[in-house]
Amino acid sequence: MTPLIPGAVIGILGGGQLGRLLALAAGQLGFDVHIYCPEENCPAARVAAKATVAAYDDAAALAGFAAQCDVVTYEFENVPAQTVIEIERAGTKVHPGAKALEKSQDRLTEKTFLNEIGIPTVDFAALEDGEGLGAALSGFGSHAILKTRREGYDGKGQIMLGGGRGRDGLAEAQALAKAQPCLLEAFAPFEREISVIVARGADSQGQIQTLIFDPSENTHEGGILKRSMVPANISDAVLEKARAAGAKLAEALDYIGVLGFEFFVMPDGSLLANEFAPRVHNSGHWTPDACLTGQFEQHIRAIAGWPLGPVTRLCDCEMENLLGSDIARIPSDFPADTRLVPYGKTEPRAGRKMAHITRRLPPRSR
Amino acid sequence: MTPLIPGAVIGILGGGQLGRLLALAAGQLGFDVHIYCPEENCPAARVAAKATVAAYDDAAALAGFAAQCDVVTYEFENVPAQTVIEIERAGTKVHPGAKALEKSQDRLTEKTFLNEIGIPTVDFAALEDGEGLGAALSGFGSHAILKTRREGYDGKGQIMLGGGRGRDGLAEAQALAKAQPCLLEAFAPFEREISVIVARGADSQGQIQTLIFDPSENTHEGGILKRSMVPANISDAVLEKARAAGAKLAEALDYIGVLGFEFFVMPDGSLLANEFAPRVHNSGHWTPDACLTGQFEQHIRAIAGWPLGPVTRLCDCEMENLLGSDIARIPSDFPADTRLVPYGKTEPRAGRKMAHITRRLPPRSR
Repeated sequence: MTPLIPGAVIGILGGGQLGRLLALAAGQLGFDVHIYCPEENCPAARVAAKATVAAYDDAAALAGFAAQCDVVTYEFENVPAQTVIEIERAGTKVHPGAKALEKSQDRLTEKTFLNEIGIPTVDFAALEDGEGLGAALSGFGSHAILKTRREGYDGKGQIMLGGGRGRDGLAEAQALAKAQPCLLEAFAPFEREISVIVARGADSQGQIQTLIFDPSENTHEGGILKRSMVPANISDAVLEKARAAGAKLAEALDYIGVLGFEFFVMPDGSLLANEFAPRVHNSGHWTPDACLTGQFEQHIRAIAGWPLGPVTRLCDCEMENLLGSDIARIPSDFPADTRLVPYGKTEPRAGRKMAHITRRLPPRSR
Repeated sequence: MTPLIPGAVIGILGGGQLGRLLALAAGQLGFDVHIYCPEENCPAARVAAKATVAAYDDAAALAGFAAQCDVVTYEFENVPAQTVIEIERAGTKVHPGAKALEKSQDRLTEKTFLNEIGIPTVDFAALEDGEGLGAALSGFGSHAILKTRREGYDGKGQIMLGGGRGRDGLAEAQALAKAQPCLLEAFAPFEREISVIVARGADSQGQIQTLIFDPSENTHEGGILKRSMVPANISDAVLEKARAAGAKLAEALDYIGVLGFEFFVMPDGSLLANEFAPRVHNSGHWTPDACLTGQFEQHIRAIAGWPLGPVTRLCDCEMENLLGSDIARIPSDFPADTRLVPYGKTEPRAGRKMAHITRRLPPRSR
């Protein structure tokens, strides 16, 4: 893979905050960015050299976009696989490729694939037309989560069943499982949630290498990531398991770029994979503050064929998402050493990710 | 000064690499950037939400630009003062203001002003129509530099006289001094050159504060900055003099934003001011790598009314400019831990600043 030269054009499918932060990192490396997004005036387009506003199935627009880009990537995993195929057909490489998309877009495919490569997950059962929900639920001790196989994120398309907390969602679950293919996942009584950010790309000799950022510990509220902190409060053994799983996944996908991989840490120290995202990841937003290379720069380096930068962590760090009207707290509610990263979104809808903040921390005892 | 909210529009006059790096920093803080530049497709416009391509004396374009910006700044000091006045007349604040421009655009005004506020400079003599060049040169021991009063940068508009190095440029100097107002500056037999980056803006209570980055030591080649390194090899006494002069200058200018201030360190430990630039400065390009807040972010924070970030330096650092065809060395000629910052310029003309690189260094003995 010949390194792209400064001034080359990096195409990004998707125009949200991840695309915006990727575009800013690409700009810092001297690249031009071309955003492809169905919405006008998206956060990423406002920091990019060029934008195409068109649907993901607009073959002519995709061909035109491909012709103007030296390499293409995506900022979210629900880009249709066909979109990637069209761009590659037009002769422009897409990193990460269609395989990572295919394996991550469908929860059944994803978990099956993880198990096939030897990475344990929670138990799960696939449901078609709602058949077998009751039996599967009983099999999982009546405590499980129903998830749509496709398109869910930030807790959307998920219904918690059993466990004695909250209302009984069984009727709602039956309706959802009847309406579309779903997965019932056994509830994992985890001790904590962690994730690793994995980067796979060239080394300085052009050989492929895998570098893994330190795992972060994550807390969610209402299905949405609220906080990530490093270091995670885990044993070295758990840390090594997470790193090993991350490396195994990236290699199995023949991955180029950065991916985020989430795990449950169980009380016995075992690790269950939850899900991965073939892109930069919300739980890696602390990396530009605490590491020699941040995840956004790293992803751009990888897809541009540049040698990956070192991922050495220099300090402890904490990241917090600001949702909805929390954005109004910027800047006055925070001390000057809090890094504020608003996404340039104009409508602060409830639950919408509007910004994140990071704080470098003095080392704490583990 | 009420802090701007995310999504507010920051206007930047000028579209070169400094404008580009300011625009990227503004994007990271969630602002939209509007670039005003006479050239199409300039480096800064390619990372900005919007660009106006028009001359600096196009009153209608300036009024339209002003109406679309919440605050305006500039990336170089040769923007006509009248341009700033037009924008302020249209009701939009420009930071730093017209005073800093006025004092820095003309070398005679600049040095006179520095002396007036008690900051020593080299001796100088103003020349009109070339009169008195010979006498002034004799007065300076026949070793001096003729500089045009306006528009010179990167060694342009300068002729070294005497000192036994290089050709005798007297005839050329006489022609230049006859053609336009010039300043003859006594040659300073300096030991080294240093600069400080000064930031003046709000603190967390909204009071104005001045923060000063550690001085860098600079080396020039052919009149163009080649390298800056921190820490500078200077005594604490010299360091304090440089900091005090920086603070005094920023206060005297009632400055809001970041400025760069260059000095000669003399063998006896005295400090002579060379010149200042009312903008982010090439010799501050190491700050994003080594300090808690970099100069670009700091300038945006200051003009947006956000509290300045801390300027604590975390490590030693070295910055090198890549000129002209040096750009072809990117990325393969550099180890992965060198940060490469190409400016997105397409024509690598000889002597043109195309990129810079930074390296974090282990602490060295002083």
